[in-house]
Amino acid sequence: METITTKPSTKFCHLFSMDFIKIIFKGSGQVMFQNNIWTGVLFLLGIFVGAYQEGQGLVAWGALVGLLTSTITAYFLPLSSDDNENGLWGFNGILVGCAFLTFLGNTPYTWIALIVCAMLTSSVRLAFNNVMASWGINSLTFPFVFLTWIFLFSARVLQGIPPTHMSEPVLSSAINPSLDLSISHLLIYWLKGISQVFLINSWVTGIIFLIALFISNKWAAIWAALASAIALFAAIMFKAPGSDIANGLYGFSAVLTGIALGMTFYKVSHKTAAWAFLGIIATVFVQAGMNGMLEPFGLPSLTAPFCLTTWLFLLPRFKF
Amino acid sequence: METITTKPSTKFCHLFSMDFIKIIFKGSGQVMFQNNIWTGVLFLLGIFVGAYQEGQGLVAWGALVGLLTSTITAYFLPLSSDDNENGLWGFNGILVGCAFLTFLGNTPYTWIALIVCAMLTSSVRLAFNNVMASWGINSLTFPFVFLTWIFLFSARVLQGIPPTHMSEPVLSSAINPSLDLSISHLLIYWLKGISQVFLINSWVTGIIFLIALFISNKWAAIWAALASAIALFAAIMFKAPGSDIANGLYGFSAVLTGIALGMTFYKVSHKTAAWAFLGIIATVFVQAGMNGMLEPFGLPSLTAPFCLTTWLFLLPRFKF
Amino acid sequence: METITTKPSTKFCHLFSMDFIKIIFKGSGQVMFQNNIWTGVLFLLGIFVGAYQEGQGLVAWGALVGLLTSTITAYFLPLSSDDNENGLWGFNGILVGCAFLTFLGNTPYTWIALIVCAMLTSSVRLAFNNVMASWGINSLTFPFVFLTWIFLFSARVLQGIPPTHMSEPVLSSAINPSLDLSISHLLIYWLKGISQVFLINSWVTGIIFLIALFISNKWAAIWAALASAIALFAAIMFKAPGSDIANGLYGFSAVLTGIALGMTFYKVSHKTAAWAFLGIIATVFVQAGMNGMLEPFGLPSLTAPFCLTTWLFLLPRFKF
Repeated sequence: METITTKPSTKFCHLFSMDFIKIIFKGSGQVMFQNNIWTGVLFLLGIFVGAYQEGQGLVAWGALVGLLTSTITAYFLPLSSDDNENGLWGFNGILVGCAFLTFLGNTPYTWIALIVCAMLTSSVRLAFNNVMASWGINSLTFPFVFLTWIFLFSARVLQGIPPTHMSEPVLSSAINPSLDLSISHLLIYWLKGISQVFLINSWVTGIIFLIALFISNKWAAIWAALASAIALFAAIMFKAPGSDIANGLYGFSAVLTGIALGMTFYKVSHKTAAWAFLGIIATVFVQAGMNGMLEPFGLPSLTAPFCLTTWLFLLPRFKF
Repeated sequence: METITTKPSTKFCHLFSMDFIKIIFKGSGQVMFQNNIWTGVLFLLGIFVGAYQEGQGLVAWGALVGLLTSTITAYFLPLSSDDNENGLWGFNGILVGCAFLTFLGNTPYTWIALIVCAMLTSSVRLAFNNVMASWGINSLTFPFVFLTWIFLFSARVLQGIPPTHMSEPVLSSAINPSLDLSISHLLIYWLKGISQVFLINSWVTGIIFLIALFISNKWAAIWAALASAIALFAAIMFKAPGSDIANGLYGFSAVLTGIALGMTFYKVSHKTAAWAFLGIIATVFVQAGMNGMLEPFGLPSLTAPFCLTTWLFLLPRFKF
Repeated sequence: METITTKPSTKFCHLFSMDFIKIIFKGSGQVMFQNNIWTGVLFLLGIFVGAYQEGQGLVAWGALVGLLTSTITAYFLPLSSDDNENGLWGFNGILVGCAFLTFLGNTPYTWIALIVCAMLTSSVRLAFNNVMASWGINSLTFPFVFLTWIFLFSARVLQGIPPTHMSEPVLSSAINPSLDLSISHLLIYWLKGISQVFLINSWVTGIIFLIALFISNKWAAIWAALASAIALFAAIMFKAPGSDIANGLYGFSAVLTGIALGMTFYKVSHKTAAWAFLGIIATVFVQAGMNGMLEPFGLPSLTAPFCLTTWLFLLPRFKF
């Protein structure tokens, strides 16, 4: 149970200080569990580079607005300032920002909804954490997933926030498994699996993210690289849809599971590695399963496969 | 955790006493958190007036049967008699009765299913409350929502209880946002937002409900009125489907959230008001999101948006 | 909370011993809560007889592979050996094996996926049990249901494991209630309701299962027989789809609920019998509801109606 450790008045000082800027960048880094300012800087850089490269610069600005909104909200609510100093109130907000401008039309209402949603991530994170505390787990990026799903579903009925870039709801789609399997293409799919953690479809961003992780912790970079490769291999073997593989959509949740199980929640070891490997494989099936489940709704699975698999692999509380 | 405080033998005495009639009316009042007999009397009156006005008198009789069934069930099960004295075993049953005759065809099997469903609300409420107790929340009207969803889904396959008045399942519907925004119409939408708490589509019933709330607690009436107005404004601004707005379907969950957060679970204050305001706005998005999610099933969202949002706003356990 | 009581090294001895064979058969028996080797032997026999009779012998071999995989997995993970000795790590695996070969095409990838899924049931069972422990319930067959759903959903997008024998996703299907209600046919439906616990559509297997239960505990056989009959009657009365009734699809979850509530989690008594009777009726509606809900996905409800209803009837913690 999180408690209040500083008075709001103290917190407001922080809001106009160098500390605030540090917290903002840490919030960006925490998406991949890294409490490191420079990792956060590079993540944001990678988002801007990739978004503009794709011709979707607004996604990067959405990310920035979401990150600022959810972090500032944490100053106004009586939330734990320990968590705040570690950037833990920002990482859901930045993902909300990426997702809103990726899937919704660019209207003023979309931006208002983005701000409301990013604000809610802060209180909903505390809500979920309070529920999960007794099970020894936390909410990971699920506040982002849960709230973004609600808003994307609402885009089906609210004309103010149109589902411009969402898939059409279909009962079951034709699958096109054709895929260029040359080494150069496989490299691109592998790097996009890493960049898609922030919903960015760019191999350049994938490289920037790997460097960002390496600066913080070499094992984070290693597990991210391994996880994307293992997931790519499994997705090809079980013949997942070719376009999804090519866009890195089977990689990003596996990357997060790999970092979470391989070096964040367990100490690095041989046994941990075997457990993380099984977790990465499981993530691929959960990813495929969620894609199949959400197809009739035309909804993306976001990082839900990562959350679900990581919870299932933490809940047995094995000590390795 | 609820415990047994009187013996069944004692309870049976109550079943044939004046107390029983009081408990019945309190059960009706508890739908909007009011432990007040006269509020309950007026709620039932409003239901009968509105249902007959709509030409759907059976809805009112369904409400009465559901209320009696779930309350009587609580006498036969070893349930808390404290809760019983406050009418807490009746409020889910009355809503079940309203919903069954609103959505299902009028067959003998529908009435049998109604009685089974209303009986189940009593034990399921205890089941859910036992799960939620450690999180500091309770099940609100979710036993009604959960069980009614099961029975409405079953109406898709059981010919005995036909889904006569349910929407057709569709993957995504055309949206008609045209809406008469004159003051007199806005007033009607606003009042229907309040009457729809009991699935009644009548502005007269909306007035009766406001009076009923005012008798019990002026703040309950104020928050109900405010919440319906705020939700109406937000739904118009984000361009929700016109017919839903006109029928008050964006109001009723917000009304319940407003009463719950504004004056029931928190003390009335400026800070509480801001929190309840955010909760009402969130309820509108959750309502739209659930409508979008349930459209492929042709299922109504009932009061689920209220339950979900209120839980999310109680779980952080902020002290204002 | 389950704890580690023997060292892995000790466990590996067991893996090559007579004990292992006992544990395997107990795992089969535990699907219907029977900790009895001969019950398990007869269950497996019934599966092989029924599967080959249907011309689907692979289902039986799938069952065996699933049972072996999940039981052996429990030797490698630091799981409770008390549970292991009682066969509690095998019952989800055997059901996974039955389901995979019933619904998916017979490709090498299907068998690999089966093994991965059966392995996961062991750790996921511990994960779910850890979550549910504080509520006084356990995960029943839900690890099987949950993981099989994920893999069946994934079959919609992974061409390696094709959904060959799954229903097409449809928004709402035409219902054919015509049903031969002669005594001899009713007997067959009733027995198939019991055999379908293992997804076997054979009245011969139903008889074998009843004998297997009777060997272990006469009340288990009585409740299984009663539950299938009550569910059959209720499904006919409320006019469930004729082909589902004829194939025993309204029986199997009710059979499990009957055994669970009638003699496993409560002591046999008149009050328990009334409670179990209500539970069986509720299971039929939950079954119909889940069928209606899962139709748009073309997904089977597996034993989810049993799990859900039994939890709802255990959670109030009534003492009879």
